[in-house]
Amino acid sequence: MAARVGLAIFGFGNMGKIHFKNCMISPRADVRWIVCLNVNDAKSMAESYNLQTKCLSTDEANIDNVLNDKSVKAVIICSPTDTHENLVIKALEADKDVFCEKPITPDFKSTAQCYELAEERHKILLCGFQRRFDPSFSQLHDNLQNKALGNLRLLKISSHDLAPPPLQYIKASGGILSDSTIHDIDMSSWLAGSKPTSIYVQSSAFDKDIAKHDCDLVVVTIMFNNGVISVIDNGRQVSYGYHQKLEALCDKGVLNVTNRRVDQLEVSSAEQSVIPSIDQHYSTRYTDAYRLILDHFIDVIQGKCEPIITKDHVLQVNKLVEAGKKSQTLKTPVYL
Amino acid sequence: MAARVGLAIFGFGNMGKIHFKNCMISPRADVRWIVCLNVNDAKSMAESYNLQTKCLSTDEANIDNVLNDKSVKAVIICSPTDTHENLVIKALEADKDVFCEKPITPDFKSTAQCYELAEERHKILLCGFQRRFDPSFSQLHDNLQNKALGNLRLLKISSHDLAPPPLQYIKASGGILSDSTIHDIDMSSWLAGSKPTSIYVQSSAFDKDIAKHDCDLVVVTIMFNNGVISVIDNGRQVSYGYHQKLEALCDKGVLNVTNRRVDQLEVSSAEQSVIPSIDQHYSTRYTDAYRLILDHFIDVIQGKCEPIITKDHVLQVNKLVEAGKKSQTLKTPVYL
Amino acid sequence: MAARVGLAIFGFGNMGKIHFKNCMISPRADVRWIVCLNVNDAKSMAESYNLQTKCLSTDEANIDNVLNDKSVKAVIICSPTDTHENLVIKALEADKDVFCEKPITPDFKSTAQCYELAEERHKILLCGFQRRFDPSFSQLHDNLQNKALGNLRLLKISSHDLAPPPLQYIKASGGILSDSTIHDIDMSSWLAGSKPTSIYVQSSAFDKDIAKHDCDLVVVTIMFNNGVISVIDNGRQVSYGYHQKLEALCDKGVLNVTNRRVDQLEVSSAEQSVIPSIDQHYSTRYTDAYRLILDHFIDVIQGKCEPIITKDHVLQVNKLVEAGKKSQTLKTPVYL
Amino acid sequence: MAARVGLAIFGFGNMGKIHFKNCMISPRADVRWIVCLNVNDAKSMAESYNLQTKCLSTDEANIDNVLNDKSVKAVIICSPTDTHENLVIKALEADKDVFCEKPITPDFKSTAQCYELAEERHKILLCGFQRRFDPSFSQLHDNLQNKALGNLRLLKISSHDLAPPPLQYIKASGGILSDSTIHDIDMSSWLAGSKPTSIYVQSSAFDKDIAKHDCDLVVVTIMFNNGVISVIDNGRQVSYGYHQKLEALCDKGVLNVTNRRVDQLEVSSAEQSVIPSIDQHYSTRYTDAYRLILDHFIDVIQGKCEPIITKDHVLQVNKLVEAGKKSQTLKTPVYL
Repeated sequence: MAARVGLAIFGFGNMGKIHFKNCMISPRADVRWIVCLNVNDAKSMAESYNLQTKCLSTDEANIDNVLNDKSVKAVIICSPTDTHENLVIKALEADKDVFCEKPITPDFKSTAQCYELAEERHKILLCGFQRRFDPSFSQLHDNLQNKALGNLRLLKISSHDLAPPPLQYIKASGGILSDSTIHDIDMSSWLAGSKPTSIYVQSSAFDKDIAKHDCDLVVVTIMFNNGVISVIDNGRQVSYGYHQKLEALCDKGVLNVTNRRVDQLEVSSAEQSVIPSIDQHYSTRYTDAYRLILDHFIDVIQGKCEPIITKDHVLQVNKLVEAGKKSQTLKTPVYL
Repeated sequence: MAARVGLAIFGFGNMGKIHFKNCMISPRADVRWIVCLNVNDAKSMAESYNLQTKCLSTDEANIDNVLNDKSVKAVIICSPTDTHENLVIKALEADKDVFCEKPITPDFKSTAQCYELAEERHKILLCGFQRRFDPSFSQLHDNLQNKALGNLRLLKISSHDLAPPPLQYIKASGGILSDSTIHDIDMSSWLAGSKPTSIYVQSSAFDKDIAKHDCDLVVVTIMFNNGVISVIDNGRQVSYGYHQKLEALCDKGVLNVTNRRVDQLEVSSAEQSVIPSIDQHYSTRYTDAYRLILDHFIDVIQGKCEPIITKDHVLQVNKLVEAGKKSQTLKTPVYL
Repeated sequence: MAARVGLAIFGFGNMGKIHFKNCMISPRADVRWIVCLNVNDAKSMAESYNLQTKCLSTDEANIDNVLNDKSVKAVIICSPTDTHENLVIKALEADKDVFCEKPITPDFKSTAQCYELAEERHKILLCGFQRRFDPSFSQLHDNLQNKALGNLRLLKISSHDLAPPPLQYIKASGGILSDSTIHDIDMSSWLAGSKPTSIYVQSSAFDKDIAKHDCDLVVVTIMFNNGVISVIDNGRQVSYGYHQKLEALCDKGVLNVTNRRVDQLEVSSAEQSVIPSIDQHYSTRYTDAYRLILDHFIDVIQGKCEPIITKDHVLQVNKLVEAGKKSQTLKTPVYL
Repeated sequence: MAARVGLAIFGFGNMGKIHFKNCMISPRADVRWIVCLNVNDAKSMAESYNLQTKCLSTDEANIDNVLNDKSVKAVIICSPTDTHENLVIKALEADKDVFCEKPITPDFKSTAQCYELAEERHKILLCGFQRRFDPSFSQLHDNLQNKALGNLRLLKISSHDLAPPPLQYIKASGGILSDSTIHDIDMSSWLAGSKPTSIYVQSSAFDKDIAKHDCDLVVVTIMFNNGVISVIDNGRQVSYGYHQKLEALCDKGVLNVTNRRVDQLEVSSAEQSVIPSIDQHYSTRYTDAYRLILDHFIDVIQGKCEPIITKDHVLQVNKLVEAGKKSQTLKTPVYL
């Protein structure tokens, strides 16, 4: 039996639960601690699966306790964004490897400092850009690398939620660009194969309540040094499902990732032909991706490979988000 | 926390492993014992997930021991077919609820006796026809029940393996009809909404080695009392994937279950447009179905619903398989 | 300018109109005469396109007149089936090449005699099995010939009309096998690559009015000498469109012809995802096929190629239809 | 028999041939003259279909002759762009209704003058934006009008050629925006349901030869007064087909027009699943649209409906193209 990696999870919202379940079905991970606001939730889930995981509230003393546990080799941080920086630093200082949900921190400088600390301590800091691990997207990436269809010219990324999150969430989100579009900017920057030279953001706010705090639709165009143009459209409401598409137009053909249908039943009558609906939520659309990014984290911890999400990458994404916000304000393209 | 159902699993081949993993991710199931030939496999899997499950070889004494364990409320039998009858009887006599992979026993009479014993002991005997729990098939069933598209006229079921099983397996399989087509006959008989009146089986043997022992392609037509005709084609080798299709033609439209594609990437070049491959194996095609039939078993155990696979159903399927074999020998339709 | 082939069309129902329009858009065909019951229809269509085509009623004197016209090189016969034999014989005796809609004649012997006469006069007799010219089916045929996917094992052909024809038509049709299934039997016999050895027909009659005269659903299985099994299902009513599918399962993969969608618009809402409807009628589903079979006829007339629908083929189809009818009556497989 | 509309066609390139063939299969159109550079081509086509159409070279005297023919009610102009203005004016002055391929003239002012002349003479001037007549696009338009899926938020239009036109053509084209993107800008402006407020154009030139004269990829974003954002990507080379997609994201769902597959054959092997290729060229992709816009032109001539492509619309498209060119030069969004 291979040794399982001892883990602590910070935060037990949507993402915390996803990572916890993936640890449970992995023979390589062993969650020793969950530290979260809603301790009872965590406790009852651990019990319901007969697991020994201990659950604590988020007091500093508890955090220190957990980070002092020698059986904990690495931590998974999926608590609210404003707690990331403190937890990342503490964990690195306690010599833990760190997996942290995006964004590491909301701003470029503090994110850079976290990475520098990780380098200093010779520890891993892996940002949770899970989409790269989706089997369709990662095959597409390989195809682009191999130039199977010649050179990339145009990259189109489309991400739209079924329905907007609660207004409360939107108010605290830091804006759609750093909350949501950041994933698409990461994909763009991962796939384009060149440095970005400019970014331009156009936005609209259709929902009247959201309009008081943020927009709910952005179109982002990024020019890259190799001539590649990337177009992102990202919105809060499309009502029929969790719309996730990507198209890479090359000079010798097209790579196309479509939405996933949830089952295989087609119903055809005189009135209409109905096909299955698409995934409704990121938790089902990216089931495989979340499982595979955990595997990747453990591979990196165990020295089996280098992280595929690097410091440079994460910092470039941060920079693009910041430039994007500037473009949104100035209503003009921003050069990098 | 709801009480978890204590279980013992007999057999740890493909199906044993599938059921074991589904128990592990269910908060409702607790596997106390695995009894199997390959004890070390079972042990190392239990250890790798940090589970307390005890693993024993298949000695009669071990079996008795496990069946005497009061914490075991139900058993899952997925050992070789020729061991089913003994285990079903012993488990029922020990007052356990029983989930048994198909076929309960290879012949009509002994299967009937197992069900009679279950009735006598007021215990559940559930046959593992998992396809009924596949979300596409179960929605199709509901559509037929509701007569959403009028009356069913023609039922087409197509099942083909990627590649034939080992010759060894085929020799011991009892023939393709009872080994494989039985699933399609179950579907047919579940969906037709009427009693079968005749069955006709045509077959070919293309693979020279298989031809010495069995055929590798059958076409089965079943007439039902309501005029519905069901056509099944079932084969051992189609090379491109685990081909599973079903079409129900009604007088007001068509219900169609297609193969599932494993991802969402399309690659289009001047030469060709390539779409993702389909599932390669029943274990991935029916992931949901296996999870849901376990849930159904526990629901029945906990009195939440009646079993949807009944004694009458299983016996009718047995009868059809036997009549099918007769038709295959006589080369003529057999009336029931 | 290449010389255009002078043609006479007999019959101006659905098929007559289709062939007339295809002649009009072909620079290789010149329809000199239309001989039909509904002369006014023909006249007004010819006028509406400013064409010189002359239109006559079906008196024997008119027929003789047309067949004596030296500018007429070939005839297209799409009048009612019971007029075929007389017209085919007269046309061949007048040294015209003949294209005749299926069936040449309803029985084997008289069809054989027509072909013998054609051989004697060194004239062409081409039966209108247009499906072979559908681009999808003809590519599938080429794939089977090339053994691109290894050896064929199972051939599945599905043909269902949107709605049944008028009762009047059904009464005079000679039964679904010779009226409709004959096309599927032709496909089967064209694609199987071997001689048929047996045929078995099962049928149901769901519509009460049709049931007095014919069935409205047949399932036909044909065994071939090379072990290939062909399964045909053919029905009068499926309500959602003109359902035409074909699947060829080989030992190294599957060839699959799907229904055609009439446009490219998908509409997805919270309730459902709707895709375009399929063709509603053979005249739109087989637009290309009808155009291409006319081209083929002219190619054969001009000596550019041999007919791909041969005497042997047509006679084999006739024999299968007759054996099928016998099977339907005897309710047992019929050996050939 | 309804009277057929007498027509003259100016120009006999790709578009001239398409319109000529559609006239031939329409019982409503009668092409009396073709005036073109390649007179022999035109003559031999007319002869090959046995038609009386007269063919002339493009001398002014010939043009005058044709326009003086009282049997000519309307003209179809598909000669080179730089000849449009002269022909449109002459034809209107000769009291002919005019169908003219896009662009009417390359600049806003002269186009406006053409429309004013048409108004003065009470004649029709219809611009050949055929895409609006494609059945998928016109249904999509109706869905947006009906607000079947709520309010439009984002309009995505994608148009890419299989391969670039000859360099010669590109040099004389006036740039990709007015040569090609104009169609997408028309669609955008037709579907958005509001006035455009700004346009921003980004472009790249990947092909080295094209780069000397023009770009070969543009991404155009247009903001509309109602908050709708439209994103167009238009390119000269995608190698696998004539890529034409459109997606309209609304607050209650999505309308999606996909590429059309040219046949219905899928080939699945162990290596890959191959689906049919898409249309390779606008002449096949828009077969229906070209036929339907001719019908619409005749409807308008015969007073059966108002033109759906209006003066205001065409001028707005012109304005957007001009603003787009400005944006391309200034590398900044241009407000309207």
